[in-house]
Amino acid sequence: MPDPLRLHVDAQFASPYAMSVYVALNEKQLDFHISPVDLGALEHRAAGFSRLSLTQRVPTLVHGDFALSESSAITEYIDETFAGTALYPSEPRARARARQLQAWLRSDLMPVRQERSTEVIFYAPAGAPLSAAAHRAAQTLFQVAQALLPEGAENLFGDWSIADVDLALMLNRLVMNGDAVPQRLASYADRQWQRPSVQRWVALERPPR
Amino acid sequence: MPDPLRLHVDAQFASPYAMSVYVALNEKQLDFHISPVDLGALEHRAAGFSRLSLTQRVPTLVHGDFALSESSAITEYIDETFAGTALYPSEPRARARARQLQAWLRSDLMPVRQERSTEVIFYAPAGAPLSAAAHRAAQTLFQVAQALLPEGAENLFGDWSIADVDLALMLNRLVMNGDAVPQRLASYADRQWQRPSVQRWVALERPPR
Ligand SMILES: [Ca+2]
Ligand SMILES: [Ca+2]
Ligand SMILES: [Ca+2]
Ligand SMILES: [Ca+2]
Repeated sequence: MPDPLRLHVDAQFASPYAMSVYVALNEKQLDFHISPVDLGALEHRAAGFSRLSLTQRVPTLVHGDFALSESSAITEYIDETFAGTALYPSEPRARARARQLQAWLRSDLMPVRQERSTEVIFYAPAGAPLSAAAHRAAQTLFQVAQALLPEGAENLFGDWSIADVDLALMLNRLVMNGDAVPQRLASYADRQWQRPSVQRWVALERPPR
Repeated sequence: MPDPLRLHVDAQFASPYAMSVYVALNEKQLDFHISPVDLGALEHRAAGFSRLSLTQRVPTLVHGDFALSESSAITEYIDETFAGTALYPSEPRARARARQLQAWLRSDLMPVRQERSTEVIFYAPAGAPLSAAAHRAAQTLFQVAQALLPEGAENLFGDWSIADVDLALMLNRLVMNGDAVPQRLASYADRQWQRPSVQRWVALERPPR
């Protein structure tokens, strides 16, 4: 019997990083349990979860007796450990670019992430228009996405990769809120969103906000 | 002739992420050019650098006609591309833990990173004591480091890895400022700091602040 897999995610199913790992596990067609952690009730600071996730963060994947946090580290681990759909490009420079994009989406564009939290996707649109800072960050996002996505391509790097999920999520913070997004990027994000592994995450039953 | 390597870094030589890549290139005993980018003069937003680094960030490594940003993506690329000292552990779970640590050090502990900028290491100590929030973040850092560093070990994962540089840098924001750090962790950070590849970065001649 293979080691059991358990994914600890936020109880709202709204974390883009939890989503990325959830999609990765589904792409590999793995069976796994899901454990919602109520961040609002500070369950991530409780002793049980702290012991598991050193840094008290979701997502945390538990594989047998090994617990791992940080979504990009988890998706790399899943890709190295399990057969099936590749999560990262095999060509070294494309793989490097996928990693760059993942790291960048996790550490930049703060005004977009704040003013267009993923609640606009999974709950309801935000009321206020983008601030000037968020507008500038969105323009940077569009420039980067336009430069990386080849004209007419369905995915960033030929075959689908986990970076497509992360980029589509970032774009959909704006698309699904009704903010202006270049048509080519909006179409790309829409198509990525239809992927069955993504739709399984979207369809999870969420508690009220 | 091998493709030339050029590393674009901040002109202060104070970015912990630039340092991580600089150390990686030195560990691989590679020849490379270094290009300081004056962030204060907004050189990162100038057309030349923007074309190179899609996201206008340092560090950016240029290898032949391939330009790559985000330090953890760059160190993975260097490790996959060049022979020599391994930058990441070869055992899958240790490698996963190294990636977790890199991602966590880049996305958490914000109060420590703000109140103990790397200028305290490369220029001069900060005057003010840690705020309550920074003190709490420092305690989390110590807990994580204590849990990951085996008793009596010189490195996190047996052989040295690039995660040791990143963790030592984060600890040294406090150690070198004179803040209280558990002795075992301070000794670890001190020893890591003596590594020749790290000392080469420390010894770079810096412009006045
Ligand atoms: Ca719960
Ligand atoms: Ca973590
Ligand atoms: Ca310059
Ligand atoms: Ca970048």
